[in-house]
Amino acid sequence: MDEIEADAARVPDAALTGFCAACLRAVGVPGPDAEAAAVNLVEADLRGVHSHGVVRLPIYVQRLAAGAINPRPRISVVRETATSLVVDGDNGLGQVVGMAAMRMVIDKARAGGGACVFASVRNSNHYGAAAYYAEMALPHGMIGISTTIGGINHMVPWGGAEAMLGNNPFAIAMPAGAEPPVVLDMACSVAARGKIIVAAKEGRPIPGDWAVGPDGQPTTDAARALEGFVQPVGGPKGYALTLVMGLLSTMLSGAGFGTEVTHMYDDLERPQNIGHLMGVLPVGLFEDEATYRARMDKAVQEVRGVRRAAGVARVYLPGEREGIAMAERRATGIPFGAGVLAELRALGAQHGLAVPWALP
Amino acid sequence: MDEIEADAARVPDAALTGFCAACLRAVGVPGPDAEAAAVNLVEADLRGVHSHGVVRLPIYVQRLAAGAINPRPRISVVRETATSLVVDGDNGLGQVVGMAAMRMVIDKARAGGGACVFASVRNSNHYGAAAYYAEMALPHGMIGISTTIGGINHMVPWGGAEAMLGNNPFAIAMPAGAEPPVVLDMACSVAARGKIIVAAKEGRPIPGDWAVGPDGQPTTDAARALEGFVQPVGGPKGYALTLVMGLLSTMLSGAGFGTEVTHMYDDLERPQNIGHLMGVLPVGLFEDEATYRARMDKAVQEVRGVRRAAGVARVYLPGEREGIAMAERRATGIPFGAGVLAELRALGAQHGLAVPWALP
Repeated sequence: MDEIEADAARVPDAALTGFCAACLRAVGVPGPDAEAAAVNLVEADLRGVHSHGVVRLPIYVQRLAAGAINPRPRISVVRETATSLVVDGDNGLGQVVGMAAMRMVIDKARAGGGACVFASVRNSNHYGAAAYYAEMALPHGMIGISTTIGGINHMVPWGGAEAMLGNNPFAIAMPAGAEPPVVLDMACSVAARGKIIVAAKEGRPIPGDWAVGPDGQPTTDAARALEGFVQPVGGPKGYALTLVMGLLSTMLSGAGFGTEVTHMYDDLERPQNIGHLMGVLPVGLFEDEATYRARMDKAVQEVRGVRRAAGVARVYLPGEREGIAMAERRATGIPFGAGVLAELRALGAQHGLAVPWALP
Repeated sequence: MDEIEADAARVPDAALTGFCAACLRAVGVPGPDAEAAAVNLVEADLRGVHSHGVVRLPIYVQRLAAGAINPRPRISVVRETATSLVVDGDNGLGQVVGMAAMRMVIDKARAGGGACVFASVRNSNHYGAAAYYAEMALPHGMIGISTTIGGINHMVPWGGAEAMLGNNPFAIAMPAGAEPPVVLDMACSVAARGKIIVAAKEGRPIPGDWAVGPDGQPTTDAARALEGFVQPVGGPKGYALTLVMGLLSTMLSGAGFGTEVTHMYDDLERPQNIGHLMGVLPVGLFEDEATYRARMDKAVQEVRGVRRAAGVARVYLPGEREGIAMAERRATGIPFGAGVLAELRALGAQHGLAVPWALP
């Protein structure tokens, strides 16, 4: 999760969800889709992953208003076997398309005794936090997998000096028993570009290893970093990861890759043809579910209980801090910096909607 | 691939394979299994991935001789559906078990019109380079996936000060058309521990960010690093990756994780119960294969042809340098440092086998 560096106000999640849904309805998204997408976005903020939360709402609304995202997509299955689906999102909101595709994957995986199932998705859009879709598998006793290509090329191939790759995130969610699920959700850069967007909105500097400016030199200026390239995690390893996650997300469905990718923020004319890959492995196909859950709990407890380095109060499992943040923020509200709230206020004003929280 | 820092001699791959197979036969491995495992090991050296090549042969032979690896395993399928397998390796060599399991996955995926298939594997051993198994899917027009838990706990959970995690590698191989396949193969540390083993054998220092000593302080002394912990790539990201790859490799089959993992080098008594997860996605289930291959070629060419940073002669795709190295080394022999060759010579002498190359 992101560190909260500015805490201008705490906003109740229900009120925020209602506001986001109203903004989406204002540009033609039907009520149930608007509500579901809003829940998806606000969940990212509840989990502390602000880079994939409501900070993205303004560009979604702008693209919907410009006709670059279809508010009323007819999502269809264009190819199908017992273990595979190809889903065409008809240029709908990424959240709407992604959730529909993952529901189809889960339904197919549950049919007839269970199966490993994957879906490739085309004609989608930026879908927010990858973890959301992987986690949809958890209540069904399945391991969930979700990858996407990013909506902007802002990474260079290793040794390159020209953006050709998105910072393509992927998520793997594994259910446990009494313990919380283990949820890996990472982009392939040192830090997600969304975090740089948040920093830029709030006027904060960024660490020196997150990005280079357009001249290829490292920068701590968030605004300048947005004109340049984000740095891959681990150098060539992060490059290889983002390339392969991008190819997995696009080559199995006809979604855009490389020079086919348009810029989510700069090009409001053309649909993005974003692609995803989603899959599930039902635990019960491989192992007795009770045995699996008991072993997962033991593994989680061993990792959490490891001897700690000096000064470390607690060792967390992947996804655990996000789960703790969500529970706490449902009770106390979600903290936001003033920049983000001001932008949401301006967005609401454009559509005649007042924000349901106090200034700022 | 690893940089070659010492080039004491070049050894022809066929002669090296024959020597390795003879060593394995000398400790009871049947001829065909010995040959296949030797080919697997030498292929890593051909590809320049010396950390997973014949540098591992001495410990394999030592474990076989000590009865800690079963030279004549009865590999069995203990659970099976149309899209899943659970394979028990009967404590055989990891290469033998891994290749058998991946063949079963591919056979099942080809049956009846094609399917996405995954196998979990238990009672295996250190299986060398993860890429080998993922690449087995390529001739069948499939994307191959392979993960394993490492044979030694030498990573700490993020914030921990006690080894609880292996440096768990994973590979994803994607076929292309006229272009070479794209092959991601990475461990979750800054550098593979095998590279530290090679450096220690050759008396070379290691970069300062690869490992910490047993006191938790960074070290450039390879021998001291082997007593300590390797550092995860990207800090918490590498920790999360290695944890999830380890869980995927073990929780679906009953293979060992965490405190259940014994030490490949220090414990010659007990079987390791190493686990793997292997899977394939047949391209043809999702996309016309010709379209897929043409798009992969275009993507590869775009990435390779990107504008380059100052001083960079060529941009490589993941796995491309390894493929180039393999072609070149088949012709000219494989370069080794003197330390590795001396160890192989000593191993051969123990079993009355002369090395088929000149000194050292």
